[in-house]
Amino acid sequence: MKIDAVVFDAYGTLYDVQSVAAVTEEAFPGYGSTITQIWRMKQLEYTWLRSLMQRYESFWDVTRESLKFTLDGLGLQYSEAAFAKIVDKYRWLDLYPDAKEALASLSHLKLAILSNGSQDMLDALVRNTGVDKMLAANISVESKRIFKPSPAAYDLIEENIGVKPANVLFVSSNGFDACGGKSYGLNVAWIERVSVAALHKEVRDPKTIGPVTLFKAMRMRMEALSLDPDFRIGSLAELPALIGRRN
Amino acid sequence: MKIDAVVFDAYGTLYDVQSVAAVTEEAFPGYGSTITQIWRMKQLEYTWLRSLMQRYESFWDVTRESLKFTLDGLGLQYSEAAFAKIVDKYRWLDLYPDAKEALASLSHLKLAILSNGSQDMLDALVRNTGVDKMLAANISVESKRIFKPSPAAYDLIEENIGVKPANVLFVSSNGFDACGGKSYGLNVAWIERVSVAALHKEVRDPKTIGPVTLFKAMRMRMEALSLDPDFRIGSLAELPALIGRRN
Repeated sequence: MKIDAVVFDAYGTLYDVQSVAAVTEEAFPGYGSTITQIWRMKQLEYTWLRSLMQRYESFWDVTRESLKFTLDGLGLQYSEAAFAKIVDKYRWLDLYPDAKEALASLSHLKLAILSNGSQDMLDALVRNTGVDKMLAANISVESKRIFKPSPAAYDLIEENIGVKPANVLFVSSNGFDACGGKSYGLNVAWIERVSVAALHKEVRDPKTIGPVTLFKAMRMRMEALSLDPDFRIGSLAELPALIGRRN
Repeated sequence: MKIDAVVFDAYGTLYDVQSVAAVTEEAFPGYGSTITQIWRMKQLEYTWLRSLMQRYESFWDVTRESLKFTLDGLGLQYSEAAFAKIVDKYRWLDLYPDAKEALASLSHLKLAILSNGSQDMLDALVRNTGVDKMLAANISVESKRIFKPSPAAYDLIEENIGVKPANVLFVSSNGFDACGGKSYGLNVAWIERVSVAALHKEVRDPKTIGPVTLFKAMRMRMEALSLDPDFRIGSLAELPALIGRRN
């Protein structure tokens, strides 16, 4: 089947969610990486829990709730202004270094983002990082009032860009999202940003496992859900060659 | 409204999921607590992800999948027999020390379990620990093919014991489950097994935050989902007095 469109997850895939660590560290010296890991883990937990409870709130609200949970749990004091400054980083996340070149080299295909992010925060993010002009669509799950990996979220691809699942390559570094796409019927490329070998080396001494390592172990590996991706790639830069071989 | 029934979550509420740590430590010296924390966090993640993907598998299968994910991610080698021995601990989890006495002192009310566990693993667990005779019902979400906090799971209470949500006290130490029960319309008592003060003390030096502390921060606090429980209690032993005041 020919690939006519490449659809990217945003947070963790094109954009580095770890880039909030500088802001959290500046606000709470010594706690930057701990906040960053708990916040991100909880942020996704809340998307799943709110979806299951049928109590959707926007990803912007979920991002705020999960940050509040994190800071309060760690016993950290903050002003509303300090809190707002941290959350605002989600409108200015760093692109992965290879993201723009990969998008540029795929410009002969339909390119889109499908993200949990609310439409306004996603639009701000792609505009702030100069990615807006490279995309045919910047799709938020917002209109479905449910988050990935619900099939309803992936329905939005065909509904927005008119390409059938069999002709879409969905790209995500989030194991759960790669599984969700695969379960739905998309072709899936999973970005393995932390190799098995690197992780095994990092956990060799269990006494040194801190929040960052735990995050890698929890959220940067493929899930054991029997929904294996079609392709495993090390970086976005591998996509043009992979699609070239396929088409 | 009078409380006519008390319904308990099983894993983490009546039964100590941390009691698998002895078995995991015996199988993988030095890794016991790391395995225990990642396994439990991932086990629940998989219930949420499978529910959202509409790919239900029994909690027994999810428990196996999440253990496999954990051991493989940590680079640990194991035989099928060693693996089976660890998983089997879920049929023999330790009761919390105050569980039986609390159940006995509430015997004038309808008592039940509502759990994600598959029916066979739940039945084995309550039988192995002598709790079976104290319960009016031992309810698994299995028949709904979806996990908590889906409203369909909580529907099972009235369907099985014939008591309306307004007359049920639902007891859970899992923040997400307390929120799910509250969202559904049950009266909810959340067991706060790790106090804010104790957690704040434990995270005072961020350099020492390992898997156990992270688990407490991630999963043993109330969620910031604006679904506050009706009661916060420190242990199961507080239930008789609490219900006495209420009725």
